[in-house]
Amino acid sequence: MAAEAVSVLITGANRGLGLEMVRQMVKGPGTVAKLFACCRDPDGPKAKDLQTLAVKYPNIIRIVRMDVSDLNSIKAGVQHVASVVEKKGLNLLINNAGILSKSTLCDCTPEDMQNVFNTNVIGPMNIIKEFLPLLHSAAKASKMSGMSCKKAAVVNISSGLGSMGLVKDTYGVFPAVSYRVSKAGLNMLALCAAAELKSNEILFSLLHPGWVRTDMGGEEGEIDASESVAGMLSVMATLTEKQSGDFFDYKGEVVPW
Amino acid sequence: MAAEAVSVLITGANRGLGLEMVRQMVKGPGTVAKLFACCRDPDGPKAKDLQTLAVKYPNIIRIVRMDVSDLNSIKAGVQHVASVVEKKGLNLLINNAGILSKSTLCDCTPEDMQNVFNTNVIGPMNIIKEFLPLLHSAAKASKMSGMSCKKAAVVNISSGLGSMGLVKDTYGVFPAVSYRVSKAGLNMLALCAAAELKSNEILFSLLHPGWVRTDMGGEEGEIDASESVAGMLSVMATLTEKQSGDFFDYKGEVVPW
Repeated sequence: MAAEAVSVLITGANRGLGLEMVRQMVKGPGTVAKLFACCRDPDGPKAKDLQTLAVKYPNIIRIVRMDVSDLNSIKAGVQHVASVVEKKGLNLLINNAGILSKSTLCDCTPEDMQNVFNTNVIGPMNIIKEFLPLLHSAAKASKMSGMSCKKAAVVNISSGLGSMGLVKDTYGVFPAVSYRVSKAGLNMLALCAAAELKSNEILFSLLHPGWVRTDMGGEEGEIDASESVAGMLSVMATLTEKQSGDFFDYKGEVVPW
Repeated sequence: MAAEAVSVLITGANRGLGLEMVRQMVKGPGTVAKLFACCRDPDGPKAKDLQTLAVKYPNIIRIVRMDVSDLNSIKAGVQHVASVVEKKGLNLLINNAGILSKSTLCDCTPEDMQNVFNTNVIGPMNIIKEFLPLLHSAAKASKMSGMSCKKAAVVNISSGLGSMGLVKDTYGVFPAVSYRVSKAGLNMLALCAAAELKSNEILFSLLHPGWVRTDMGGEEGEIDASESVAGMLSVMATLTEKQSGDFFDYKGEVVPW
């Protein structure tokens, strides 16, 4: 991302891909003015690395307590962010927080299905809706024409496991039914958002980070978080209104629905 | 469907497409031995037409009280069906019951999203899982090789609104975000089921009934329930293991994911 300084919000920013995004963004060419790093428990042991990073970049990083499965928590986050960005709004919202359950169909319980759907679909929906006024403000405040991640955008971290076209090839290795259903649902949600908010010049994107060696992806993952995030940030920088609603992997390749 | 007499279960069988399926199946060439017509309230005013039909075909139609959003109600339904079909099992399960909410993203509440997901995704999941022993029995009892709707199959009534590929063309006319998300989720669920239960020779199919003039589709629908159902029954009759996990419309055309 070049030139104008932007504001960014990342959910699930205390570890894995979210933490790596924070790391790479603040070390980047200095275009991120404010980075709201959201996590459920900023004071807990799982947020230590994020806290260390925030101490190092006190003018950029703001840690925000947010549980994406709790609407009131999201609303409180919006208040916090609004008080900082004011009329400039929020330029880039990254729906990264998510949970994984690896169960097969035969093992999957209704509670598992519901729980994963709540966090991975209803969470992002609530976040999009609650932050919409700030995204609108950013779109209006921007002097750029068209759409971009520097103007007003929502990037949703999806997964290749949410691709219907890839089920036959991947199911045997990695069933994760409830996760797959949730990511297919997230894909549909983002596509609908792209259609509904097109005239407001808010970009929506879906990214597959690759199979990454994180707590979620496991040790057998194919790439490191640093490679995945570097790739995704490059892809984000290229997105325009032509790609709104599209589904790309971290290399910029189209992922089939 | 030809030759051997089969057992069929249809959810949401008291009206719309479900009722029309019952009607056409019992009037067909006599291959349906038992038809379990499920609905929430068999004694209520909305089940009158189904009751009339059941009186006319007492040897074939069995009305089963079932609320697909209630696991205990599904379990009771399984008991009922099992006591009738015994070792022959259940050949064809049609997940037809579903609800529609027309809201846009901006109007959609978390409760709406959850409610539609519960009925349209978790409901079919629970039904598939609970009826699985009866589907296994049918697959084992059958003398046919390969897969078919006469042997052991689950047909899921999905929707073109659940197609990611069609969102850009259809969103302006018919937003229905929660419904779209649920049908994309149902598509993924059925695809996963097809992959997981392939070796058990249970067929899974996804059908788009077209835009039908029913209570759900509204008066502006493009076709009657009779045309839609006649088409879907023709498509079902052609399904083999090669089409398991595929998504077709009532004309037999592939619907994009």
